[in-house]
Amino acid sequence: MQETKILLSEKEIPRQWYNIMADMPNLPNPPLHPGTKKPAGPDDLKAIFPMALIEQEMTSERWIDIPDEVLDIYALWRPSPLYRAKRLEDALKTPARIYYKYEGVSPAGSHKPNTAIPQAYYNKKAGIKRIATETGAGQWGSSMALAGSLFGLDVTVYMVRVSYNQKPYRRIAMETWGANVHASPSAVTNSGRKILEANPDNPGSLGIAISEAVEDAATHDDTNYALGSVLNHVLLHQTVIGLEAKRQLELIGEYPDIVIACSGGGSNFGGISFPFIYDKIHGRDIKAIAVEPVSCPTLTKGEYRYDFGDTAGLTPLLMMYTLGHDFIPPGIHAGGLRYHGESPLVSQLYKDGLIEARAYGQLSVFEAAITFAKTEAIIPAPESSHAIRAAIDDALLCREEGKSKCILFNLSGHGYLDLAAYSDYLAGRLVDYEYPDEMIRESLAKLPVV
Amino acid sequence: MQETKILLSEKEIPRQWYNIMADMPNLPNPPLHPGTKKPAGPDDLKAIFPMALIEQEMTSERWIDIPDEVLDIYALWRPSPLYRAKRLEDALKTPARIYYKYEGVSPAGSHKPNTAIPQAYYNKKAGIKRIATETGAGQWGSSMALAGSLFGLDVTVYMVRVSYNQKPYRRIAMETWGANVHASPSAVTNSGRKILEANPDNPGSLGIAISEAVEDAATHDDTNYALGSVLNHVLLHQTVIGLEAKRQLELIGEYPDIVIACSGGGSNFGGISFPFIYDKIHGRDIKAIAVEPVSCPTLTKGEYRYDFGDTAGLTPLLMMYTLGHDFIPPGIHAGGLRYHGESPLVSQLYKDGLIEARAYGQLSVFEAAITFAKTEAIIPAPESSHAIRAAIDDALLCREEGKSKCILFNLSGHGYLDLAAYSDYLAGRLVDYEYPDEMIRESLAKLPVV
Repeated sequence: MQETKILLSEKEIPRQWYNIMADMPNLPNPPLHPGTKKPAGPDDLKAIFPMALIEQEMTSERWIDIPDEVLDIYALWRPSPLYRAKRLEDALKTPARIYYKYEGVSPAGSHKPNTAIPQAYYNKKAGIKRIATETGAGQWGSSMALAGSLFGLDVTVYMVRVSYNQKPYRRIAMETWGANVHASPSAVTNSGRKILEANPDNPGSLGIAISEAVEDAATHDDTNYALGSVLNHVLLHQTVIGLEAKRQLELIGEYPDIVIACSGGGSNFGGISFPFIYDKIHGRDIKAIAVEPVSCPTLTKGEYRYDFGDTAGLTPLLMMYTLGHDFIPPGIHAGGLRYHGESPLVSQLYKDGLIEARAYGQLSVFEAAITFAKTEAIIPAPESSHAIRAAIDDALLCREEGKSKCILFNLSGHGYLDLAAYSDYLAGRLVDYEYPDEMIRESLAKLPVV
Repeated sequence: MQETKILLSEKEIPRQWYNIMADMPNLPNPPLHPGTKKPAGPDDLKAIFPMALIEQEMTSERWIDIPDEVLDIYALWRPSPLYRAKRLEDALKTPARIYYKYEGVSPAGSHKPNTAIPQAYYNKKAGIKRIATETGAGQWGSSMALAGSLFGLDVTVYMVRVSYNQKPYRRIAMETWGANVHASPSAVTNSGRKILEANPDNPGSLGIAISEAVEDAATHDDTNYALGSVLNHVLLHQTVIGLEAKRQLELIGEYPDIVIACSGGGSNFGGISFPFIYDKIHGRDIKAIAVEPVSCPTLTKGEYRYDFGDTAGLTPLLMMYTLGHDFIPPGIHAGGLRYHGESPLVSQLYKDGLIEARAYGQLSVFEAAITFAKTEAIIPAPESSHAIRAAIDDALLCREEGKSKCILFNLSGHGYLDLAAYSDYLAGRLVDYEYPDEMIRESLAKLPVV
């Protein structure tokens, strides 16, 4: 009997994160201060991040030690299993070998705790008492709430109001882990109050929630801010995924021809792909594909230029693929992929042709998700299902071409808390949204010139 | 670094289930035909169960081979991890060593697929095309839906109407795996129609749903019935939990002084405890504790006598601890523990003093659940949290007495789909229900005398 899943022991949890900045042929241009438009240095970030994370944001060291205290908590669910998707292969009648790394085994149900845990650790060590952060549908907020509870940090989460009201389950999970959750815009911050004065029924957005969390952190000495994607140190922490996957494939004599992950802010894609892109930079033939929704086509239709991370323009300007910081994507169910920008590291790799990108509509994504649930048993998160769609398409291409390629994708989370989306799909209530190119051009035209 | 979780490889999934009937000092009296009140034989069950399961229900063989096709699917999540609850121990300042087996890693989120998979397999092999079953909150129905999708069986689930309306997530999971779900009472069966005629707004009950599923199976040649607990073959299948746990503890040189699990119909408790009760029968000193809600105190306040498995009296009479088949427990959140009876095997062991029972109110259970979530990171199902409460109490007793006992409990499922219950608890909306002894006596007085 061939093994269904390849497991590693706790001793094999990576002891170091991999920093791709040590190997990239070109580094992204540096972030700019939002006021001066000059390169932002460590001092510009000190008000909201601990120095250890600022150093990780900027270092060119290839390997960064993972603290023992972080490894102890990673051990609650890591190493995560690598699955051979044999039942899916059989259903597709493909000669391809499909593997998936499953990050839904974390207590919060996604890959997000991989970075929430070290972020909580470094903040605790720096004497910080409280973390302020934002969340959309709640994957990140619940991971930060969990991390806070394990390190004895208070956590305040600004949750986009429409999600707060419509998707209560992840809010309740945050509260169960002891976090304090505000519907955003809230009356707690100046930026929130200002927006509520103009419109008490404002449904909120990720951009507004970021502004509230950053303001909260900047105005309280004992409080720092935490971000769940986009930044270099966040992608660094997620490389445990790819490092483990590489070791697991090695154990069975495999190496992927294609690595696939969905991409919102880029941490999930960077997490699994960077250790393989290291090999590509050093000459190995491998394809890495970032998958995004057609309704938020950051890489496939955005431009590579400086833009703000938030709607209000409070964050540093980042050099990245973007649709414009006031681009509001339609309300698709893959909430984690509804971000206007893309991690500067992933953006630069895309610019340099080291990775590819692909976009799908949500109907074909949910079709793939159902196929996966009925063969591999796990109900996947809508975000992760973008990767499943791409993997299935590449496996079907293998069938057409009679090629037996090795395909690896990251199943970044389960869909237990996204079942309303499945209900909508099964009842025929979902439609595909494609953003008109003209509206993207208009949104981009409004960007600051730097 | 001590390991946080003890893992086994897929090769170490047990190859046989353990049948405690081979070792019990006294077997329960046989089930009786509901009409004739004579012992029910294999022929009485043929209309709704495949012969392989009827044989497992009655055999005295100690070890029953697990088919390869079942092992293949078990491998999707088994062996499940055994955790050392070090963070919980530290929080309790207890000298006790606490271990928990985690069944929430199954794709349906609980231990229920351990028996849904073999039940689907044996029915498929017997040429059955469709399974009819009932579900309350949905743990069992979703597991059967999953099993059906993996074996290509159609699955029809009669789901208690009040859950169907108020708890849509597990219904959607069933539909995602392709099952057909009816709110019960439904217009699909005679028993359902009869009840709807009397009261179109009848909220349903597990008893009514069982009647509908049994009628559906009995009146369709291609359809069988499946039950998720209570029966001997169901408990047999669940023994993989205890067999794995025993091996995992052995690997680190441990053996439990106390084994704890929650008990509704008894399959979760039987699953983890029977392999250890084997040792107790053979002279080893070990305590096994079944934990139930004070609002449904089957073992702690029920009587040991013949009763029906369902409200309508269609099933065979089983010799068991019962509160009476028309006992309707209050609507506590641990839906899986709201059953009037108890597995005949567990009942006989209790009668013979080989196991103990304990009952808790839901407030103290949720208090324990929150402590667990904040230390061990996993948000537990309300049912499983009864076992956590008991484990914490025994660990605190160890602290008082200065004893370092080894405590093992089964964490039968996660609470992602039970977060509304946590919300109610955190908002102070939960109360403790205790059923007045007099009402239990009244309910028992109505039982048939056989």
